[in-house]
Amino acid sequence: MLPRVRPRALGAAVLLLGLLLLVGLFLLAGDPRADDSGGSCCRSTQLELRDGRPSGPVARDGAPRPPRCQLLHVAIVCAGLNSSREVVTLVKSMLFYRKNPLHLHLVTDSVARGILETLFRTWMVPALGVSFYDAEQLKPKISWIPNKHYSGLYGLMKLVLPDVLPPGLAQVIVLDIDVTFASDIAELWALFAYFSDKQVIGLVENQSDWYLGNLWKNYRPWPALGRGFNTGVILLWLERLRQAGWEQMWQLTARRELLTHSATNLADQDIFNAVLKEHPGLVQPLPCVWNVQLSDHTLAERCYWEAADLKVIHWNSPKKLRVKNKHAEFFRNLYLTFLGYDGNLLRRELFGCPSQAPSGAEQLQQSLAQLDEEDACFEFQQQRLTVHRVHITFLPHKPPAPQPHDVTLVAQLSMDRIQMLEALCRHWPGPMSLALYLTDAEAQQLLHFVEVSPVLSARQDVAYHVVYREGSLYPINQLRNVALSQALTPYVFLSDIDFLPAYSLYDYLRASIQQLGLGGQHKAALVVPAFETLRYRLSFPRSKAELLALLDAGALSTFRYHEWPQGHMATEYARWREAQAPYRVQWAADYEPYVVVPRDCPRYDPRFVGFGWNKVAHIVELDAQEYELLVLPEAFTIHLPHTPSLDISRFRSSPAYRACLRALKEEFHQDLSRRYGAAALKYLTALQRPQ
Amino acid sequence: MLPRVRPRALGAAVLLLGLLLLVGLFLLAGDPRADDSGGSCCRSTQLELRDGRPSGPVARDGAPRPPRCQLLHVAIVCAGLNSSREVVTLVKSMLFYRKNPLHLHLVTDSVARGILETLFRTWMVPALGVSFYDAEQLKPKISWIPNKHYSGLYGLMKLVLPDVLPPGLAQVIVLDIDVTFASDIAELWALFAYFSDKQVIGLVENQSDWYLGNLWKNYRPWPALGRGFNTGVILLWLERLRQAGWEQMWQLTARRELLTHSATNLADQDIFNAVLKEHPGLVQPLPCVWNVQLSDHTLAERCYWEAADLKVIHWNSPKKLRVKNKHAEFFRNLYLTFLGYDGNLLRRELFGCPSQAPSGAEQLQQSLAQLDEEDACFEFQQQRLTVHRVHITFLPHKPPAPQPHDVTLVAQLSMDRIQMLEALCRHWPGPMSLALYLTDAEAQQLLHFVEVSPVLSARQDVAYHVVYREGSLYPINQLRNVALSQALTPYVFLSDIDFLPAYSLYDYLRASIQQLGLGGQHKAALVVPAFETLRYRLSFPRSKAELLALLDAGALSTFRYHEWPQGHMATEYARWREAQAPYRVQWAADYEPYVVVPRDCPRYDPRFVGFGWNKVAHIVELDAQEYELLVLPEAFTIHLPHTPSLDISRFRSSPAYRACLRALKEEFHQDLSRRYGAAALKYLTALQRPQ
Repeated sequence: MLPRVRPRALGAAVLLLGLLLLVGLFLLAGDPRADDSGGSCCRSTQLELRDGRPSGPVARDGAPRPPRCQLLHVAIVCAGLNSSREVVTLVKSMLFYRKNPLHLHLVTDSVARGILETLFRTWMVPALGVSFYDAEQLKPKISWIPNKHYSGLYGLMKLVLPDVLPPGLAQVIVLDIDVTFASDIAELWALFAYFSDKQVIGLVENQSDWYLGNLWKNYRPWPALGRGFNTGVILLWLERLRQAGWEQMWQLTARRELLTHSATNLADQDIFNAVLKEHPGLVQPLPCVWNVQLSDHTLAERCYWEAADLKVIHWNSPKKLRVKNKHAEFFRNLYLTFLGYDGNLLRRELFGCPSQAPSGAEQLQQSLAQLDEEDACFEFQQQRLTVHRVHITFLPHKPPAPQPHDVTLVAQLSMDRIQMLEALCRHWPGPMSLALYLTDAEAQQLLHFVEVSPVLSARQDVAYHVVYREGSLYPINQLRNVALSQALTPYVFLSDIDFLPAYSLYDYLRASIQQLGLGGQHKAALVVPAFETLRYRLSFPRSKAELLALLDAGALSTFRYHEWPQGHMATEYARWREAQAPYRVQWAADYEPYVVVPRDCPRYDPRFVGFGWNKVAHIVELDAQEYELLVLPEAFTIHLPHTPSLDISRFRSSPAYRACLRALKEEFHQDLSRRYGAAALKYLTALQRPQ
Repeated sequence: MLPRVRPRALGAAVLLLGLLLLVGLFLLAGDPRADDSGGSCCRSTQLELRDGRPSGPVARDGAPRPPRCQLLHVAIVCAGLNSSREVVTLVKSMLFYRKNPLHLHLVTDSVARGILETLFRTWMVPALGVSFYDAEQLKPKISWIPNKHYSGLYGLMKLVLPDVLPPGLAQVIVLDIDVTFASDIAELWALFAYFSDKQVIGLVENQSDWYLGNLWKNYRPWPALGRGFNTGVILLWLERLRQAGWEQMWQLTARRELLTHSATNLADQDIFNAVLKEHPGLVQPLPCVWNVQLSDHTLAERCYWEAADLKVIHWNSPKKLRVKNKHAEFFRNLYLTFLGYDGNLLRRELFGCPSQAPSGAEQLQQSLAQLDEEDACFEFQQQRLTVHRVHITFLPHKPPAPQPHDVTLVAQLSMDRIQMLEALCRHWPGPMSLALYLTDAEAQQLLHFVEVSPVLSARQDVAYHVVYREGSLYPINQLRNVALSQALTPYVFLSDIDFLPAYSLYDYLRASIQQLGLGGQHKAALVVPAFETLRYRLSFPRSKAELLALLDAGALSTFRYHEWPQGHMATEYARWREAQAPYRVQWAADYEPYVVVPRDCPRYDPRFVGFGWNKVAHIVELDAQEYELLVLPEAFTIHLPHTPSLDISRFRSSPAYRACLRALKEEFHQDLSRRYGAAALKYLTALQRPQ
């Protein structure tokens, strides 16, 4: 039974409750204004909680927040090699500030997909899911729309997202690849709560006068509400869009407008604006700080000058970072923060949000946990287990046309050898696959270095694969394997970065492969004899005859003749001097020639990190698999002088380092015995022979 | 005249107003809880607005915020070389998230002051003020307190801040150097608004059981309220502390406790806690997220597991980053973010907060703005104007004892030459001053490299000065000037990093300086003849006789004999072979010997950046100032082979690069004429002579 309440007290209570609600709503709704300017452009956008939302918790910042561990969805259209590099900075900025699990829905072409699948698989970021959608299949849906914007056909694909994303997905944030986050994306997601029942799209006003039609003479923008909206950042309420018949709606509008406009100027943005002009009730305007537009004629200053907090920066000028803006330096700094940010640091867990570990991560954690930190070789064991983030084809690249005897030069390097690249390009006119061991910041230096080099930027057949640094030992064989696995020709020349091949080597190798009938049944490794010079400015020999003359004059010697003769002795240099035809040599202990092999050759053993025995083990493997070692009579490659690497210095100075290398060798031989049985005995015997 | 109001309506209005206030207070006060745990440790700390504060605006996050451009004050005690390096990470994290002008009050010893003054002067961060306070003068105020904590006497200095900071300063945030920010410091400052009239100190509860006395057997902690408070992060209401007679208060408590305790265990923290136990009304407990303590026995997990947002992390274990904690990886990532963060990016302005530009910044901006981006030599001009952030004595260092003829080896390098350091240390047993051109991340690699090298870590007389990278050209002469200006002996040997001096050179130079009576009137530069080897493994000559034998055998040559003979020809090597005594040589065009000069010698000309003519110009300057060039008969130094630098590659391959260098030379000669008049004619004539 209810207690009896006096009607007057009841009235007061109701009044009180009403007041409380009123005050609450006032405080909540007032919040997003705080960041907004009062200027005539980018005006304060009053968000109101029209339908009693949010149902989620009201958190610290007064604004509704998505529930703590709610999965947030983000869709990005990303096509081509350059976009797949540029999108990484956006992703890093988003991951840096995020506190929620995220799922990325990436609409990609096959190039971007190949790159980004590898990147995310090796990145192993906890609480980050990624799905791919094939842009090729979307093209028919929008290819009928003529478009003048630099984003091309891909720009238009945002229009069809409601149709393409999983039917169960109710809401998504759609981002252009040229935006940078300066805040937690959950705050943006929270703005869905301000949508009225009828609203389906959240957008920030366009921060230029483009749609007012007064920027230049003689241009006619598509229709828009006032200044129109920018579509670099979109909140899409997919569920409602589907119910509202979005597909018919935008197509109808687009077809009608295209009767009087020859094409869209700004891709999807023109069509979104034309639809919203017709149906203004669909749009929820968002505070300007969520899309600060640094376009050429931006009025964004009115927004950011007042705002204490910028949330998202949008580089929507075709000039991108080079845009003329008196505060460009400030914005560039925010961008550069994430451009150079060590992506490995984003592999951090989200406390209190249980999430599935990325594939392989758990096993890796267990293996790492089993290592003994006190072990003298701990560093070696840790390095070998490390999964490096890999960004394949970081720079513009065209795959070579398929040719049956083509050869790719395979090598690896770090930043301190980057100046070798130009000379290498002059010596090797064929395809190359290079693995570069770099920090995120160094990867940007590489980009700049290649762009400003006429020699390098002219070469589209050199593929640069970035392997991000982690750990103290150079993971030489992991790098070689990345470069090797990305070679696209049937043969590979396994070289090192400090060597310059004979100018004729590329042609000569292809001819030799053909003549020798390599491939198929004939399992062979072609040996390219190695020499070295200690001269900075060698007059590089144009022929074998010139090389022999330099050898006799003492300007050249056979490679590591003084320091490590067993490394190349088995090449039988004396025989090579006279040879007119390829000749077969026998494997010998510590033999490590530079060889040409089919692309499907055995991989390098990743346990060898740092200096020592990394190539030797690979030649053992080739011999164990019965590759014939054939020395080519006209082939040669020459090592140039350089500063000793850090790893070789450590090898020379540290007995502990050498002991760890010995342990690796022993382990390697045990594995050999397991795999090849008695046939592996000769390698063990060779190892135990005192040298 | 007031309008007549019916009493009943008035009553209703008052009720309404009261209700509104109540609701408002409720919403405001509830906020800081959101981040707090509900565990038994680190319990939710209900902040209440007891005295009607805040007066400032109530901002987005519901919590009171300091007015937008309000200057916030931060005090840090920082003594010694290592602390002055470690504090930079704290400062970077603070600057990264801050949106207010800041003023740092640094209590330092003379070592830290020298380092940090240079750092902040060259950092040029807008809206950041720095004041220094001499820790030496504070020592008498606290040296009577015996202390067992690793922070030593300096830990105790936080107690006397109210006495030391400017009397006009009302409030300050006090930080230990081992904290890292993960949020905007203004949010912390805003918590002052929750202090009651009587409260003077804001602190986070200690996140270990130390003060409960049950961590081990047989220890007796100082008195504290429950778990006590941690003093790594303090809000100090200075004005009220002074009024309340803080100095007498803490001294009285400390003296009394020291009757039964032999010393403090945890420095100032014991005393703060003892005072608060006695006067619990003084403390305002702060939410646990503002001081997440990663100490050895931390209970912090109860705090951070619940909190979506961590605000400040405190590395308060003596093990620091190596602390055992199952989430250590997560916290380390946050720390490493700022450890490796490019500090140059923090030179960004605060929009909308007018602030005085850092000294020199305005002039620099103007000079940079006057450059023409289209000029082919723009990069050179920009590089030369760049003010690099400089961190002198980045690593442990003991200044050499004053000796009248002592010589410091001066050189500069970037990361790719770091492996030269060990060999250099073996060849030069005397003091060195090295400028290293590094990114922030590389500076940490340097630290690690030196720590793990037995050779390098044993040497306290090698000073490492970090000059942070900015721009695309190597600022070689600016680096040389940094190293030169930090040399502490009367003489300097101006060397390059790829050279190894004769083992005897250090002793021989000191003896020569003494014998020749250098210094005072005798203005001379002692020439150390330079040689080069192209062998990786040279058996380094132990004497001039051995060197001559190697020269005759072709294992050595005079430096750059083939490529650039004019660089060292004037040393007259033939004469040197036979010389028994120092002999005088004449300046010649392009001469660039390695010399020993008094420390007050002319500086290098910073306009020469990248490769070429940087040392030549310095020798011209010495000659113009009438330094006698004296070749030492027993001195020698040998250049080792290395990979050509990026700059030399660009010089060789780019005609534009060479043209810019020519322009620099011409400018240099014009300046010479201005300064030395007719005497400079010979240099110009030499330049114009065809080579």
